[in-house]
Parts: sequence; C-alpha cells; structure tokens
Amino acid sequence: MPMKYAFNTWVYGSFPVWVPSYPLEDVIRRLGRIGYDGIEIGCAAPHAWPAHLSAARRRELRGVLQSEGLAPVSLLPAPGGGPGNNAASPLAEERQTTLDHYKEVVDLAADLGAPLVLYIAGWLVFGTTREEGFERSTECLAQVARHAATRGVTIVVEPTSADSNLIETADDALELMRAAGEPNVKVMFDTYHVMYRNEVSSDYVYAMAPHLAHVHFADTDRLAPGDGEVNWRGVLQAVKDIGYDGYLTMEIGFNNRRGDPDSYAYRALSYLKALERELG
Amino acid sequence: MPMKYAFNTWVYGSFPVWVPSYPLEDVIRRLGRIGYDGIEIGCAAPHAWPAHLSAARRRELRGVLQSEGLAPVSLLPAPGGGPGNNAASPLAEERQTTLDHYKEVVDLAADLGAPLVLYIAGWLVFGTTREEGFERSTECLAQVARHAATRGVTIVVEPTSADSNLIETADDALELMRAAGEPNVKVMFDTYHVMYRNEVSSDYVYAMAPHLAHVHFADTDRLAPGDGEVNWRGVLQAVKDIGYDGYLTMEIGFNNRRGDPDSYAYRALSYLKALERELG
Amino acid sequence: MPMKYAFNTWVYGSFPVWVPSYPLEDVIRRLGRIGYDGIEIGCAAPHAWPAHLSAARRRELRGVLQSEGLAPVSLLPAPGGGPGNNAASPLAEERQTTLDHYKEVVDLAADLGAPLVLYIAGWLVFGTTREEGFERSTECLAQVARHAATRGVTIVVEPTSADSNLIETADDALELMRAAGEPNVKVMFDTYHVMYRNEVSSDYVYAMAPHLAHVHFADTDRLAPGDGEVNWRGVLQAVKDIGYDGYLTMEIGFNNRRGDPDSYAYRALSYLKALERELG
Amino acid sequence: MPMKYAFNTWVYGSFPVWVPSYPLEDVIRRLGRIGYDGIEIGCAAPHAWPAHLSAARRRELRGVLQSEGLAPVSLLPAPGGGPGNNAASPLAEERQTTLDHYKEVVDLAADLGAPLVLYIAGWLVFGTTREEGFERSTECLAQVARHAATRGVTIVVEPTSADSNLIETADDALELMRAAGEPNVKVMFDTYHVMYRNEVSSDYVYAMAPHLAHVHFADTDRLAPGDGEVNWRGVLQAVKDIGYDGYLTMEIGFNNRRGDPDSYAYRALSYLKALERELG
Repeated sequence: MPMKYAFNTWVYGSFPVWVPSYPLEDVIRRLGRIGYDGIEIGCAAPHAWPAHLSAARRRELRGVLQSEGLAPVSLLPAPGGGPGNNAASPLAEERQTTLDHYKEVVDLAADLGAPLVLYIAGWLVFGTTREEGFERSTECLAQVARHAATRGVTIVVEPTSADSNLIETADDALELMRAAGEPNVKVMFDTYHVMYRNEVSSDYVYAMAPHLAHVHFADTDRLAPGDGEVNWRGVLQAVKDIGYDGYLTMEIGFNNRRGDPDSYAYRALSYLKALERELG
Repeated sequence: MPMKYAFNTWVYGSFPVWVPSYPLEDVIRRLGRIGYDGIEIGCAAPHAWPAHLSAARRRELRGVLQSEGLAPVSLLPAPGGGPGNNAASPLAEERQTTLDHYKEVVDLAADLGAPLVLYIAGWLVFGTTREEGFERSTECLAQVARHAATRGVTIVVEPTSADSNLIETADDALELMRAAGEPNVKVMFDTYHVMYRNEVSSDYVYAMAPHLAHVHFADTDRLAPGDGEVNWRGVLQAVKDIGYDGYLTMEIGFNNRRGDPDSYAYRALSYLKALERELG
Repeated sequence: MPMKYAFNTWVYGSFPVWVPSYPLEDVIRRLGRIGYDGIEIGCAAPHAWPAHLSAARRRELRGVLQSEGLAPVSLLPAPGGGPGNNAASPLAEERQTTLDHYKEVVDLAADLGAPLVLYIAGWLVFGTTREEGFERSTECLAQVARHAATRGVTIVVEPTSADSNLIETADDALELMRAAGEPNVKVMFDTYHVMYRNEVSSDYVYAMAPHLAHVHFADTDRLAPGDGEVNWRGVLQAVKDIGYDGYLTMEIGFNNRRGDPDSYAYRALSYLKALERELG
Repeated sequence: MPMKYAFNTWVYGSFPVWVPSYPLEDVIRRLGRIGYDGIEIGCAAPHAWPAHLSAARRRELRGVLQSEGLAPVSLLPAPGGGPGNNAASPLAEERQTTLDHYKEVVDLAADLGAPLVLYIAGWLVFGTTREEGFERSTECLAQVARHAATRGVTIVVEPTSADSNLIETADDALELMRAAGEPNVKVMFDTYHVMYRNEVSSDYVYAMAPHLAHVHFADTDRLAPGDGEVNWRGVLQAVKDIGYDGYLTMEIGFNNRRGDPDSYAYRALSYLKALERELG
C-alpha cells in the first residue's frame, strides 16, 4: 500500500517566522498542485486561530479542502508567545487558557474533518519540578481527551526535546499517554526532535509501534527530507514494518525566513516518493 | 549626564524560545542585582499576558519593581503565533484582536507605571499590497494612541526589517508616525534590524532625532553589545550628540536556547558602561 | 509556447569588474553560438557608452546582431561611480546628468532596435528622506518615459534592494510606476534582489503580473540558475501561469573576476531549457 | 617625526557600492573628528565628479577642509562603469574620454589644493596585447603629467593587480613612470594589491623607495589595518627606514555594503597610532 503524505502549514504562515505568509486557501491549492494527499493545519493567524473562524468560514475551508482533494489530517497549537499554551505552567491562569484553547482546537478539527490534534505537553519554568509539570500536563491532557472523545478526535502526544524540557523521549510520551488513561490518546514523534537528542528515528517507530498515530518528517535543521542527515531509508522501512497507516507529515522550513515554501514541499515529496519506489 | 540602561525580558521568558524561562519576580531581582536601571517587559506568558494578571497581581509586581529599584520602562507584545497580532492582516478578525490586545497592553503599562508601549506595525501576507497594509496599520495605531493618551502612555513605532516587510526603515517609521497624526506617537529603532538592512545604526539616531523616544541595543545575531560587529562607539556618540534622555534597552539572547540569560545581561552592561566612560 | 532566453553583457564587460572584458562583437557572436535568443546590453565602455558610439557604429552593431540572429532586448545604465546616475541624488547637477544619460540610453536602444530600457530608481544619500528621493526619481522617470514614448521604447522599473535603499520591493516598483503616470512604464524584477530580501521570486511574478515586462534571472551569489538555492521550478511555473511573453534574461557572474563568462551563459541555458521541458 | 594619516572617501560614497553614502561635508567633518590629518577624495558623485562642481562649490569645499583642519592629499578617478576610464582601451573614443577626465581631475585637485592625482593605468580588453596597452597608457600618462605640471600637481602610478592586468607590480609601475618621461610622475602602491599577488608589502616600499610618493593601506579583504593578515609592523618600519614623508592613506571598507564607515576609520587610526608608538 502506498504511503500517504501530508504537509504542515507553518512554513506558509506567520508562526514562528512572520513572513512569507500566505492565505490558507492559497496553501491548500499549492499543496494539492504539488501532489500531497493531506494537510496539517497550524492553529495560528492568519490560517486557523479558532476564535477568528466563524462557522461559515469553517464550512468554506472544508469545501476548499474537498475541491482540492486534500485530506484534513491534523491540527496543532502554536506554543510560546502570547497566552503561552504551557499546560505545565506554574500559573493557574495560563493552565486554564491552555486547556480552553485545546478544546477549541479540538472543535475546529472536528468542524474541518481532521481526525487528529497534536498535544505539546508544555515545559518547566524555573522552579517547577518535573513531577509537578508532569501532573499538571496529565490533568490537562485527560480533560482535552475527554472533550475530544465527544467530537470523535484523537489526541497524539509529541515529544519535543529540541524546544522543551518535559516530554522529550518516546518513553516520556508513552508515560504521559498512559497517565492520561484515555483510549483516544496516542503518540507520535518528529525526526527533528529525535536528532536533537542524537537518537535514531527508526528506533522511535518500533518503540511507539502499537500506539503510533502520527509522525513528523524533517531533516537536519528542518530541511526537506533528503537534504540533511536523517536515514530516511531506515525510517520508511520501519513504518512499513509496523504497518503504519497514517500520514507521513512534513514539518519543515518554518524556522527561518529564507527559502520558498513550495520548494520545501516539492523537494520533500519528490525525494520520499522516489525512495518509496526504491524500497518497493 | 550618565546613560540609563534597561533590559528586555524575552531571554528570560518563553517567547519565542520556550526555555529557559523564569518567573517575572526572579527576572526583576536578577536585573536589579546586575545593575540595570530599568526593565522592558514582554507581554507573554508566563510574565505578562494581560488577561492572566489580576489587579492584585499588577499591584504586587509594581511593588517588586519598586523594592528592587528597577524602573518599568516599556511593554511590548509578542507578534506571530496564536492570535497573530498583525495590525496589517487581511483578516478583519485578526485586526480587531490586535487592536484589543494593544489596548490591554497599554492598560497594563499604565498599571505597572511604564510610560512606553512599543508598536510593531505588522506585516504583509501574500496578496496584501503595501498601501493596504500601511492603511490598516495606521488606523490601528491611531486608535491605540488615542486610548494610550487617556492613560498617559506614549506609543513608539519600531521598524522591524529582520522579521517583517511593512515598516523596515527609519523613514517608514516616521511616515507611519505622521500618518497616525497623534502627538503621543514617537519612534524607536533596534540596532539588530538596522544591521539586517546593512545600514548604519548611528544614522538612525540622527535621522529619527527629534522623535526618538526609545532604542533597542543588540549586536550581531542578538549577541550582547561588544560581542559582534556593531560600531557602539558611533551609536553612543550619536545618542550623546542628540541629547537622548531615554533608556538604552538591551533586547538580546532570546533567539536561541543556548546561553545564560544573566550572562547576556551582565556582559552588555559591563561593555557599554566602560565604553561610556571612555567617551567621557 | 517555448520561453525566450536573453543574456546580460556585464560579465563580458568592464563593469563593475574590469576584467575579463571582450569587445561587443565578440560577445554577440558567443551568445548566438551558445544558443541565446536575445541580448541585454549594459551601457558602459567598452561596449555601449552612448557618447562613444557614432551613428555608423550603431548601424554596424545592429548588423552584427542581425547576422548572428540575436534580438536586442534591453539596455541598462551602469549606476554608481563617475557621474553617479542617481536620480534621487541631493545634487541637482547629478540629477540632470542622470536624466540626460537616460535619454541617450533610450536613443541608443531605439537605434539598436531594443524595445526596453531598465530604470534604476536611485538611492538615498544620508540626509535625504524617502519622500524626497521618491519624488525626485518619479520626476526623472516621467521625463525619461515621455522621451522614450517618442522613440517607441518602454521603460521598466527594477527594484534593487541588494544595492540600494529606495525601490526595494514589488510594491515599491509598482508605486513608482503609478506615480510616473506614463503608459510606457512597466515593471520587472531580478531574482537576486528578491533573495536579498529573503522573499520568494514566484510571489513577484504574481504580484507584478499585469505589468511585468522583463525579468532578470540569477541564482545565489549571481551564479547561473541551477547552481544556487532559487526555486526555479516555481519561477518558471509562475511565468507560464501568467502568460509572460518577454525574455528570461540572465544577469549573472559579473560580481567577481573568477569564472569564464561563456560558462555562465552555457550552464544557465542548459539548466533552464531542461527544466522547461520537464514542466511540459 | 610622526606619521601623517589620511583616509580615502570611497566607503563614504556611492562607488563602487551605492550605499551607505554621505555628503562630502559630512565625510570631512567625521574624518576630522576621528583624528585624521588628511583626506583622499574619490572623483565620483555625489562627492567630486568634476563636471558637477562649480567654481563656487570648489571654494566652499576648500573652506570646509580648512575649517575642519583636514589636508587635501590626493584625488583619484573611479574606473570601470559608464565612460570606462581605461587609458589602454582599444576604443579611441574611450581613450580620449579618459584623457579628458584625468585633466579635469587634475584641475579639481589644484582647485582644492591637493598635490597628488592617482593614475590607474587601465586594463587589457581581450584582443589587446600588453605592448599596445602599455603604449596607449604611456601616451595618456605623459599628456596628463604635462597638464598637471602647469597646475603644480604630481601624478602617482598605482599598480592594481587585484582589479586589472596591465600594471600589476612595483616594476610595472616604475617602468610606466620612466616611459612617461615626465619629472612630476611618481609611484605608489596599495597593500591590498600586493596581497593579491601574495607578495610582501614592505618589499614594495624598498623597491619604490626614491620614487614613492603615496601609499594605500588596507588589510585582508579591505578590512582596517590590524583586522587582517598584513604585517603592519614591517610596513611601518620600512616607510620610516626610507624617510617617507607622505601620508599613509587608508583605502578600506568600500567593497561591501556592510559595516559602518566611521568604524573603519576609527579602528584603522587607533591601531596604526598604537603600533607607531610601539615602534618608537
């Protein structure tokens, strides 16, 4: 069965780098033209900050996705900055804002038809212990998951070692998943964060295997797969080995202002499809 | 008359890099101990997202500032990510959110006793012309300024070429200031953005002279002054030449996860005070 | 319809790097042999400084172009150095020299049969505001355009961010075009200048679309297309999308003394023709 | 006897890099404030294109030089671009333009009170032999020198290996000097061009000794002396050894757009004066 490829919208939007930035319709059309099967939508202006999207606008976007033949795969929040989105924050106000925000992201996912929402567990501000942070994040995750269950959405926990200091490894993610104790919580990983720890991406595939519901592909320095040092042959073989049937989602190019978003999208897809054919 | 030095809190917070991050009280105490005269507070969790700060909390923070002898100098929003904060956005909803947010930042500044709020003019999403963006941002700025006037706050326009594509130069900032037509709108510049344009920082001092109300100091790659290639001698001479009486505010070290925030704060102050003595 | 390719002569001349330098007849013969359709001629000695070219010499050059099957596409002046050619100069004498020079370049274009002359808007000397510079350059452009209309020549405004500080973006060029208010003024862009701004070249194609009359191709560091990081696939697709029917003109290799001019010309053409075939 | 230091204006002007650029009065005041004894003025707009400077303007500039205490040391043309200024050109028209231009540069030097004009011998366009080029340049130089004699101006021949292919070495310059056969022709050298040939700068001092009338100082990549790899101790010792009584003239920083001109001027002077004190 051929792999399904999706593309994350950050490089086309204003987070974390403000420009270049394109309207979401443009992004959908470009990704469809380049040949992607699905899209991962970042929940930040000008694309998908939930409070900015009326019911009519959500129907409209769903229509554009359908007419361009692009499946809505997943949604994720933009942590850091403004309200923070740190589920492990020492501030009760920030934790509440984070919980509320995840619920509205779940609702937006359901409205757009996306089955997955990514969960970034937060980070430890100086003075917070791992135990405190873990407990706070678990509580947030459990509540988000229960809300998501009512909308048919699955939550996937992502270890983000390159950016944070709470959920860093495959085991950390699985531990948080189990602590939440909700059946619609799964895990995922991002090759970029694996590299930050000098670990091996295919190891994550096998370690997370029964619970792996999503995956982010990025090469060294968030380059397109094939332009850096990740062993993509090993990663593709591993996802085939475990019978992974989700999307392979590129999350690339968004960490700097240089570079043409379409070029990242095109290079990644060309490289991976060629490698997939080669693996047979 | 000796110069006054302030320090921006980003490197101690979770924007744009999530960790390391310190509670705001900690930051205030550290900067006071290192020897700064003032502080510029970034309006993002966990420090100063306005909606997270009750009236009691604001009084408490004001008290900490006073007891540590640190003057509240300025506040600024965290653009990009989440709600966006792009005053030039093609989305009416985002523009409204941005306006509302600037008003609450002004209120927070007044509550904390800070006389200045920085205005980041926004950026052009693909399909928006400069003319449209400029008009939208002017309208937002004028409304923010009128609200700020009621609270005794001055708004300073910052050209941000390294991050955006609307207000990039000294002349752009002055043009926006004039277009707003409100007396409590002034301008500022950041040496880092000047360098992005391969321009000369002291030129900005002279060009903005009668309207210069604030300034950001950062060396190459957001290093501490003295650790990069900026001609600080020329900049200090220029602010002396024009009789600038505001704060010299370091906005450094926040663009990566490496490095000790206290070290940035200490190195910058030591270098600049020594150079100031040398200039006499 | 297949694309038409032209080549700019700077790398074969003495501006801005003095050597290697070839007589213009040699350059014409070499470009024809390599397979170019057209030529862009830089107006500097020893090729085409207008005052050095008698009427007889102009007829002779026209004959060489015809016999080599190379279309004269465009002419451009050599700004910076000597008389300056800065239409936004604070010196009235320099502005007059610039205007006079553009008129003689227009005449030379007409005499050689080239339909286009490039307009470099000038730059801001310290102490000149953008408003003053813009007004001066607009006045020069309008006068040049009116003279050009009498000779059947179109003037194309080029944003030159990498070298100057007045007309830097697509919007700047369009704004200057509109300010001039003459129907024979159009716009162009150069991928090298787009990259200096860390912007996306195909965005310029779409933004300038109805007025785009010329284009300069150069890869990173003025290398031949395909040897750097420009997304040429995106650029070629964009010019096809908008039905651009002008020449794709290489302006490469002239910024240093190393390298064989013929090699730049050959590599660029081979790469782009192959990519064009691939896009279908 | 202490050394005398002068500074060349290119980095403050629009040749060869258009910006940053400052009015000539500004440059004179800045160099005086930094502590230079003299100035070398490049003959290009907006500073000193002869045709742009009326008699009144020349008197005015002479007054500014006097009131700032800066000695006018030397003038030089801006070769390459526009009319070319190649005395060895195969085009009779370009050679005539070059001769006429040198004469007006001599007149400007006399009007401003500068005793020296630099002679750049030109370069060989493909198809010109060294013998032809040398003869053409000799003829031009002799005529320039005879005109200069009537104005009390000395012409100094500079080998420019990094930029050209005709007069590259100390011996080349001396050979051209002798060929011209005029007593007011002397020689000079530039450490940057010496480095291009991987030769030793102090060797040039001794080789040119009885005829050395001027010198350009620049470190690796046109950095300020002390920031690159030139052996300045050896050069300073050599000029002391031969009893050189001209100016040490910095020609630095003009080859790129980055960097603050004042900073180049300040760093060079600080470094060389300290080294001079050290040599005793």
